[in-house]
Amino acid sequence: MGKYKHIGEQSIRFEQPPYIIGSGCVAGKKEGEGPLGKYFDLIEEDPMCGGKCWEEAEANLQKKAVEIALKKGEIKAEDIEYLIAGDLLDQLVASTFGIMQFQIPLFGVYGACSTMGESLALASILVEGGFAKHAIAVTSSHTASAERQFRFPVSYGNQKPLSATWTVTGSGAIVVGNQKHSSGPYVRVTGVSTGKVVDYGLKDSMNMGACMAPAAAQVIGVHLRDFAAKPEDYDKIITGDLGVIGQKILFDLLKQQQFDIEKQHMDCGIEIYERTEQDVHSGGSGCGCAAITLAGYILEQFQKKQWKKVLFVPTGALLSKVSFNEGRTVPGICHAILLERED
Amino acid sequence: MGKYKHIGEQSIRFEQPPYIIGSGCVAGKKEGEGPLGKYFDLIEEDPMCGGKCWEEAEANLQKKAVEIALKKGEIKAEDIEYLIAGDLLDQLVASTFGIMQFQIPLFGVYGACSTMGESLALASILVEGGFAKHAIAVTSSHTASAERQFRFPVSYGNQKPLSATWTVTGSGAIVVGNQKHSSGPYVRVTGVSTGKVVDYGLKDSMNMGACMAPAAAQVIGVHLRDFAAKPEDYDKIITGDLGVIGQKILFDLLKQQQFDIEKQHMDCGIEIYERTEQDVHSGGSGCGCAAITLAGYILEQFQKKQWKKVLFVPTGALLSKVSFNEGRTVPGICHAILLERED
Repeated sequence: MGKYKHIGEQSIRFEQPPYIIGSGCVAGKKEGEGPLGKYFDLIEEDPMCGGKCWEEAEANLQKKAVEIALKKGEIKAEDIEYLIAGDLLDQLVASTFGIMQFQIPLFGVYGACSTMGESLALASILVEGGFAKHAIAVTSSHTASAERQFRFPVSYGNQKPLSATWTVTGSGAIVVGNQKHSSGPYVRVTGVSTGKVVDYGLKDSMNMGACMAPAAAQVIGVHLRDFAAKPEDYDKIITGDLGVIGQKILFDLLKQQQFDIEKQHMDCGIEIYERTEQDVHSGGSGCGCAAITLAGYILEQFQKKQWKKVLFVPTGALLSKVSFNEGRTVPGICHAILLERED
Repeated sequence: MGKYKHIGEQSIRFEQPPYIIGSGCVAGKKEGEGPLGKYFDLIEEDPMCGGKCWEEAEANLQKKAVEIALKKGEIKAEDIEYLIAGDLLDQLVASTFGIMQFQIPLFGVYGACSTMGESLALASILVEGGFAKHAIAVTSSHTASAERQFRFPVSYGNQKPLSATWTVTGSGAIVVGNQKHSSGPYVRVTGVSTGKVVDYGLKDSMNMGACMAPAAAQVIGVHLRDFAAKPEDYDKIITGDLGVIGQKILFDLLKQQQFDIEKQHMDCGIEIYERTEQDVHSGGSGCGCAAITLAGYILEQFQKKQWKKVLFVPTGALLSKVSFNEGRTVPGICHAILLERED
């Protein structure tokens, strides 16, 4: 076998870290009007994205994100060995119909809103292990398809508690390759800490930040121990969509592990909207939230040399409407991806 | 990066093929009464498997399959770096609740009934690439949870056309490792051909064999070309759940590619039931169908030295009840796993 690259309890340190050579992100109108709007490659003003139903709309977001990532990465679909895709919809239909036309061998993945972490981890593993020269990771969410599926159709105008989040409409795609792209600085995926299912017994699908925070605390804690690192070694530790309530719980739980990440922490769900003005309660959520923040804002900070080392930790809540209605808990899962700049 | 192990269009040839060191399979009562009944580790007579609802029943199947695989593989959960799990249920709730207790880092995957192919491929990739010493792949299906979700609750007694299949109740788990187990003969995963989404425009969820056959023909054809192999080089080429209608279409489509696999072909869905006596129409289906046939019957044939080289090709139909009701097509995806015996 290859040299053993697994370290500590749950982590991989890549020997020859893959490069992020292309990225694409498409955001909805509301996201385009938010504080990160200027970082997105494309703002889709039409909520249906040219489709006939919400599921088709979300599929079209994925299609466009992949097209942009391929273009910016200056690579053709036929030169990519694997596509790793997932979304929040039952049986991943946004991915199936969104990426079908590219005819790239597919690994479909599901990790709820942590999916960008899982797909980017697997894309990097495929490249670093010598199984591919290029792989592309893509995920999406759409506020209308997700709300209808998990809770109520948006058109019902159902009220939500302040602990609830707003599902981001958007899709992000990242091309990972085994060689440098034409121009630096380069962002490399240098490590991965893969999460476990963590269940603190919470059952409130209107407070997913609280459901996911224990899983985020578990994987961030284990990552820091596995890499013998301290929070201050990172420019940012970025969770996916904990929102303001989940963030508080994360800080508390990490303090129990003797880690204080308050200075380094950023949450994509908190950053992506003007919470009060845009009326999103606890923040943004969905696979698309972490994906477009990564493909848009985060990579841009690396390019501008603002950041050198970032831990990207998309956060996922594991429920279906059936499991929720059956009174099951909402466990969480999160994956931590270590991103480092090479000048 | 590691040495490039990708060959041809869609395949990997492992340099140091991982070993299958443990397997476990749990089957329902009906599957236990079928022709392969004696090969399953455990027949679960209770359709609820000790749970309170169908989803919990299916989760319990996964739990038991993993427990058996760990026991037979003589390995503890804490010595397994990754668990790759998936099922047919919305948001993979059978996997979430089935495998949570093992606390193994999780990659959740979805490939419809091809999921055992995807999870075994990724488990093998993780081991061969040096990212893990051991990984476990598990999938499941349950006739009651699947029928209610995709079509109608079983208790409705809805009639089905003869082209329909019967979803297998069962779960199979495979432990892959980088070293030989205590006793031979050994089965190694020597290659993988990863499938693409193939859409011939069919829309009939009661004829999934026809929906999946084009994807099976695509990946088997490309596998044979990528490995410069002929059908007669294999003892068996085993699809997941095409049933008798899908099998015919597969033969026809492969003949267009100049491959005749009629002598080598076996379909888990055809073998798992006495089709007429057990009233299953076109055959068995579901993630569990290929998984328990692999973990039970197929590995046993290797152990008995009946077979030396097998292409295992689980077949998946990509639909959700929403995509179906919206009039979308039912595309297929299949992954081919090359299994070879080492004495």
